Amino acid sequence: MNQSDNLVNLLEKKEIVKVCGAYDAMSAKLVETHGFDAVWAGSFAISAIHNVPDASILTMTEFFDAASNMVQSCQIPIIADCDTGYGDANNVRHIVKKYENAGIAGICIEDKTFPKQNSLLKNGNNQLLSEKDFVAKILAANEAKQNKSFSIIARVEALISGIGMDEALKRAYAYEKAGADLILIHSKKISPEEIFEFSESWKGSSPLVAIPTTYYSVKMDELISHNIKMVIYANQTLRAAHKALTNLLTKMKDANNMDKIQNEMSSMDEIFKLQEMFDIKSQEKDIEEKLRKLGYIS
Amino acid sequence: MNQSDNLVNLLEKKEIVKVCGAYDAMSAKLVETHGFDAVWAGSFAISAIHNVPDASILTMTEFFDAASNMVQSCQIPIIADCDTGYGDANNVRHIVKKYENAGIAGICIEDKTFPKQNSLLKNGNNQLLSEKDFVAKILAANEAKQNKSFSIIARVEALISGIGMDEALKRAYAYEKAGADLILIHSKKISPEEIFEFSESWKGSSPLVAIPTTYYSVKMDELISHNIKMVIYANQTLRAAHKALTNLLTKMKDANNMDKIQNEMSSMDEIFKLQEMFDIKSQEKDIEEKLRKLGYIS
Amino acid sequence: MNQSDNLVNLLEKKEIVKVCGAYDAMSAKLVETHGFDAVWAGSFAISAIHNVPDASILTMTEFFDAASNMVQSCQIPIIADCDTGYGDANNVRHIVKKYENAGIAGICIEDKTFPKQNSLLKNGNNQLLSEKDFVAKILAANEAKQNKSFSIIARVEALISGIGMDEALKRAYAYEKAGADLILIHSKKISPEEIFEFSESWKGSSPLVAIPTTYYSVKMDELISHNIKMVIYANQTLRAAHKALTNLLTKMKDANNMDKIQNEMSSMDEIFKLQEMFDIKSQEKDIEEKLRKLGYIS
Amino acid sequence: MNQSDNLVNLLEKKEIVKVCGAYDAMSAKLVETHGFDAVWAGSFAISAIHNVPDASILTMTEFFDAASNMVQSCQIPIIADCDTGYGDANNVRHIVKKYENAGIAGICIEDKTFPKQNSLLKNGNNQLLSEKDFVAKILAANEAKQNKSFSIIARVEALISGIGMDEALKRAYAYEKAGADLILIHSKKISPEEIFEFSESWKGSSPLVAIPTTYYSVKMDELISHNIKMVIYANQTLRAAHKALTNLLTKMKDANNMDKIQNEMSSMDEIFKLQEMFDIKSQEKDIEEKLRKLGYIS
Repeated sequence: MNQSDNLVNLLEKKEIVKVCGAYDAMSAKLVETHGFDAVWAGSFAISAIHNVPDASILTMTEFFDAASNMVQSCQIPIIADCDTGYGDANNVRHIVKKYENAGIAGICIEDKTFPKQNSLLKNGNNQLLSEKDFVAKILAANEAKQNKSFSIIARVEALISGIGMDEALKRAYAYEKAGADLILIHSKKISPEEIFEFSESWKGSSPLVAIPTTYYSVKMDELISHNIKMVIYANQTLRAAHKALTNLLTKMKDANNMDKIQNEMSSMDEIFKLQEMFDIKSQEKDIEEKLRKLGYIS
Repeated sequence: MNQSDNLVNLLEKKEIVKVCGAYDAMSAKLVETHGFDAVWAGSFAISAIHNVPDASILTMTEFFDAASNMVQSCQIPIIADCDTGYGDANNVRHIVKKYENAGIAGICIEDKTFPKQNSLLKNGNNQLLSEKDFVAKILAANEAKQNKSFSIIARVEALISGIGMDEALKRAYAYEKAGADLILIHSKKISPEEIFEFSESWKGSSPLVAIPTTYYSVKMDELISHNIKMVIYANQTLRAAHKALTNLLTKMKDANNMDKIQNEMSSMDEIFKLQEMFDIKSQEKDIEEKLRKLGYIS
Repeated sequence: MNQSDNLVNLLEKKEIVKVCGAYDAMSAKLVETHGFDAVWAGSFAISAIHNVPDASILTMTEFFDAASNMVQSCQIPIIADCDTGYGDANNVRHIVKKYENAGIAGICIEDKTFPKQNSLLKNGNNQLLSEKDFVAKILAANEAKQNKSFSIIARVEALISGIGMDEALKRAYAYEKAGADLILIHSKKISPEEIFEFSESWKGSSPLVAIPTTYYSVKMDELISHNIKMVIYANQTLRAAHKALTNLLTKMKDANNMDKIQNEMSSMDEIFKLQEMFDIKSQEKDIEEKLRKLGYIS
Repeated sequence: MNQSDNLVNLLEKKEIVKVCGAYDAMSAKLVETHGFDAVWAGSFAISAIHNVPDASILTMTEFFDAASNMVQSCQIPIIADCDTGYGDANNVRHIVKKYENAGIAGICIEDKTFPKQNSLLKNGNNQLLSEKDFVAKILAANEAKQNKSFSIIARVEALISGIGMDEALKRAYAYEKAGADLILIHSKKISPEEIFEFSESWKGSSPLVAIPTTYYSVKMDELISHNIKMVIYANQTLRAAHKALTNLLTKMKDANNMDKIQNEMSSMDEIFKLQEMFDIKSQEKDIEEKLRKLGYIS
């Protein structure tokens, strides 16, 4: 089963699909080995590791490369955060082809104008694209996809932009009608109330997706009981890595030796294991055995 | 002052130059903001975040891109770990030109055969290149460099390969004579004794470099008193990030909500600050001010 | 002298600066070896060799890589066609830093909306950006540049879009005031009349640039006498390569052997020479000589 | 049918499979539109357009990107020239996975040592790898491939290196036994005699491949009657483009206007057609039609 079929399958079988953010192949692999259902290749986190603002500074090429590297390391589905789709309907058409061919399970595009700014930035620019122009992007995405299980997630930014619940619902229905497979309803409130108001009003058949970054206290069973089918923890891994490095480097700078930090680090062997250094040894043995059978080694 | 001049300057002025490893632009920037003198763009860590073995699987292109991204984010010098030089003398000639043009302060090449395996892998392949062939690489590097302060670090693997102290010293003198600017003497012992035996015997004029991964208890003043001019903490940041992610994901997987992990993460604002999201706002204001003066905004 | 200083110098000393388009490092090198003053890394041609439409499908990353490869192969200045600047003022700020660091001599940005379509496409979309928003891009570009000889070329599309001569001139003065170093006035007419009307009316101090793709019969001395300081032959190399391949492949497909096409191809040795294969041999000899002096070869 | 199945199919059905070299997506597309069966993504030509020697200066990453771009533009199979496999058996294992995932139909690896030099360079370095070490690479390639129709072509350089016919045949049998799907026998003679001596002696079941660069006068029916199942015209397109540019630029440099070169170039419209600029217009109309049905446009 390929990864996009797998994602559709998870949505059918599980009460809620748990997705965790990653920003490089190692973090994606760790998301997988810790039992999450899928990986979110998020543009905030990927921008952060390149040390550039989350404001359409990195290009599609760089976001694509990050997601593509994850696909090569993981078995679970990779969902690519594609911001506004990197242009208009025409650009969306091209990226759907490109991302689908690379084995990415689905993409998420949001209804803001390009270039975007992070939705959680205080006083950030959250101007919405017209419904018509975003519907055009969904239509183009839908035409371009070749495997019907490649998932197109439409991210509704109406609540972020402050334009209100009615507009959020109106747009969500329009995006579903245009072919969106899932609807991501985003909020920057510290409680899930507006998300739940949306999800209870929602009569569409597309599953709903939430990203509880600001309303992190929301409970899993609340999400389930309020009709959320996919939850994305988008940036926790990045923020934990940032904190760990900050703590480590603070200690290291003035340390006379590195005794005290040993407990804060994984061993070399743990990394070797994750990156499959030990497999090289067994693969070399396997080749040697075959060379022996062929008479090259006595 | 460009970054390679800066590195030469640090070597002249400081008792010991403290270098810390990084694997992407964010970790490099954090190394800088925490007061280290320079960044080590190490191939073990860069391989690890791509989730491939540290065994010449990533190509020069990918290692170069990682180091080049760091240069674009940092003011302090970036030193690129170039493994065996990605080929022979001819390849080394090309990479020196490429790395120097990109603003990288120096490269390190080691005297093992290509493709290499990590020096600290138990029972790993640590076959040495002939002294003649490695000298050829140093000669080519030296011819190719255009700024004389671009640093060529020759990494002596004789102690790692078990071939002995005399060979290590013999090779180090040969590499210095061929034009190496610094000598990195590597060891996988858990105490610094063989490093110190080497450094006390060393009569060359090239500064010595050490990487105390296995002999991490060594004290800074011991390194200084034993003639080590540069210390590289090559992989601690990578290993701390790995541990932090492992801990976080273990907790997240079964958590009912994310309350308990909030203390283990930096805030969004801390990341926004590092990636200069707030600068965008002030830059936008600056442009607005200018547009106002030009009469476009009233 | 670096390449951006060199470009400024050429503008001062020559009657007219002759620039020829290229799309990869080989075509750029051939432009150089045939005596042109500078290379135009054009987005139409670079899109074409990637076999995608010239409609903002390739990203800045891919256009940048193409231009950067040319810098590494050439001594003459490389001018990068940056379409609309790949976003807003904020994106332009970032690319100026990136392109300048890579040794590119200057960039050209045009006052159309993103995503753009090729200006010469019949019935193509040539919607203009507001003067204010384009001035903001020029202001940002100007703030970002560190070497004052890094050239910012503002491309005026008013004649292409059909909005008229007065608007073209008004915008050109506005762009110059905002900091543009050169003004490129574009036309799709088959005669140079409107270009000359513009250039004769022009009272600014920024040099004028023309791209005679459609009005190819214009003579060099006419351009000079009409106040044009730089002429760009943007896509002739690409179109000649396309024609040569079309002719060759037509013959090859049904040929019984390859005798008849030998005259239509350069020899292997001519390519070896351009790509400096023979330099490897002399460099190897040089290293051998040094190894001999050091006693490694007897 | 995917492209690797397609290649296997062509080998079964056709008297001889005609493959033509390309170096970027446009040249690959032109090879396709002119009726060839498959594309050869050759390292000589790809190195040449990057203006670097064909001597393992470009990395796997860059060669891979070129081949991968071709896959995205073409329907016919792309065969990637992978030189010596970019390392040892372990590297070959990784590239097979990578290339197969990208939709490339097959790879060719040759039994020279890394870094290699072009086989047709006069007095070039053509040192052979030991049979054992090359067999190890074929074994690893075979283990790594997941689709059995992904083709592994073993290129025998024994005739190029001057080691003789017996060794060439011995190695070819060994490579077939280790799992090579096709055997490419290379020669730099100006007549096909040694190729035919090899092919007539060959009793293996793997199809034979020839590259008649130096013995270009060989006739198609001779190749067929001498047991050659695939012929690769590796570098003619590159050499024709080089010649066309050389001729064009020579004329352009001193021309007073561009009238005289118009016949040597394809029109803009021909390029627009190849790069599917006109498809954008019809796709835009299609989206408009759908938006009209949805009531967004009246």
